[in-house]
This record gives sequence, structure tokens and C-alpha cells, in this order.
Amino acid sequence: MAIKLSSLEVYGVAIRSEIDAARAYQKMGELVESKDGKQKLRFLRNEEQKHRALLEEMYRKEYPDIKLELPDKGLAPKLVAAADRDAPITKLFELAMEAEQGAEKFYAEAAEQSESQSGRRLLAYLSGMERGHYYLLKAEYDLMAEFDRFSSYKKFSMEHIGG
Amino acid sequence: MAIKLSSLEVYGVAIRSEIDAARAYQKMGELVESKDGKQKLRFLRNEEQKHRALLEEMYRKEYPDIKLELPDKGLAPKLVAAADRDAPITKLFELAMEAEQGAEKFYAEAAEQSESQSGRRLLAYLSGMERGHYYLLKAEYDLMAEFDRFSSYKKFSMEHIGG
Repeated sequence: MAIKLSSLEVYGVAIRSEIDAARAYQKMGELVESKDGKQKLRFLRNEEQKHRALLEEMYRKEYPDIKLELPDKGLAPKLVAAADRDAPITKLFELAMEAEQGAEKFYAEAAEQSESQSGRRLLAYLSGMERGHYYLLKAEYDLMAEFDRFSSYKKFSMEHIGG
Repeated sequence: MAIKLSSLEVYGVAIRSEIDAARAYQKMGELVESKDGKQKLRFLRNEEQKHRALLEEMYRKEYPDIKLELPDKGLAPKLVAAADRDAPITKLFELAMEAEQGAEKFYAEAAEQSESQSGRRLLAYLSGMERGHYYLLKAEYDLMAEFDRFSSYKKFSMEHIGG
């Protein structure tokens, strides 16, 4: 992180980012046409919702007396804005991949700086999970991008990935 | 691949491996206790079932006149054997991670050698997806392994990842 955040601020940024990510995946799931794509995006949305719940629980445990305040923006404001304006799905995938890589790095650094063992464990876990999400998105995106070049991704995904 | 397989053989090995992987994830999903773990493993099982369907369809297209024959063993016979004998869940995760890495490499090499464009695309896609699976498993495994050292993973997963 360029500016060092307090652990308390880390949780706020992280929770805001998980909320944003879940919303973006929800939107992306509505935009993709293949059943397989919808299933993957539903999985990702559910994952981010669980991450949010884990972070909120950890926050309550570590700061039982401090009300949780979320910042206006999380780690990926560009993704949120693009999802809100129904940007093309390939663009949303690109921004989501960027967001997952940013989250992976953010959590890894936050884990290192965490003063509590359970906080460190959770943050390291989330870092690893976001890395997995990145690669799932990337595989889907690479296929999509290649088929876009042939203007036939939709056809392929209908035929091959269970339309 | 140490021994160069024909494209026809590649499909047989790949389909057998996807069947094995889906079965192993099914078993692992029965063995893990947390709801979150069960959901993740169900996602992975469904993914491998879709991969199998994609491979079978591609095989039928490329070899319409040759009956599909599956080898007795796929890429990860150790995973199959361990799942069949109800090995400990941490061991199954280790073998599943090894299997995903093996599959990623197998598909990447098969994609390079593929003579058809659609075959190459599918195999490259599967390679990328298995890489994503590996990282999802790894994040879960790292957490599990750390909690095992404190003999309290079950407790954590009950408390934190939604019982």
C-alpha cells in the first residue's frame, strides 16, 4: 500500500471492496449469456459475500467498541463505475481481473502488517483466494478475447459451454 | 508429456482425468465439514463435469468415426486411490493440488501440439481453468494446514466460514 493504513482502516477498505466486487459479479452474471458463465460469476459473487462476512466478524472481534465505518471507495472504483454504466463484458472482465490482483496484493501486505494472529491468517487466506479468482477470470477472458477476434465467442459459448 | 501422445490419446487421458477429478471432489465434499468447503468442492466438481462434456464434444467433432476409448488410469491415479480409501482430507487436498498442476501442464502441452484451432483453444482454456482451481485449493489448504498445527481448524471453519 502506498499509504500505510491502520488495521482498522484495512478492514474498512477490504469490506467496501468485497461489497463492490460482489455487486460487480452480480452485474456481470446478468450480462454474460452462457449458463456456464453465469454459474462461474454466481460462484465468485458468493465467494466475495463470504469474504465480507468473515472480515466483518473479524472486525467485531478486534474492535468490539468501534463502529465500523466504510470508506466511499474501495480498491477498485473503476470496476464499480464500469459495472454501473453497463460497460462491455470484456471490459468488466479486464477490470475485475485487475481488481482481483489488487486485492491479492492488498491482503498479502495487510497480512504481513497484522498484529493479531487470527487477523493475519484471515488476510493471508483472502489473498490466496483472490489469486484463484484472478486465474478463473483470466481463463474465461482469454477464451472470450480470442473468440472476439473471430466474432464468434457467443456462438462458441452457446455450443460448447452449455449455452 | 514424457511420452508423446496422439491427439486421440490426449482426449482419452483428459476425459478419464476429468471423471476422476469430479469423483474425488465429490468425495472431498462429503468429507469436509464446513458449509463453505462443501460449496467450493461442489463448484470444482461441477467444473470438472463441464470440462468432461466439452472434451467429449470436441472428440466427437474431431473423430466422428472413432469410438472413444478411455484408459484405465488418468493423470492422477494417486488421487483416485486416496479418495477411494477415504484418506485424510489434508492428504486429499495435497493430491488434488498436485493433480490440478499436472492437468494445467498436460493441457498446455496438448494445446501446443493440437493440430486443430478449436482443439487448441479448448485445451488452452482448460489449462488456465485448472490453474485457477489449483489456487483455490491452495488457499483453502494453507489455512487448513496452519490450523491443523493448532488442532483447531475445525473450530475456526465452524466459527468463521459458516459451519
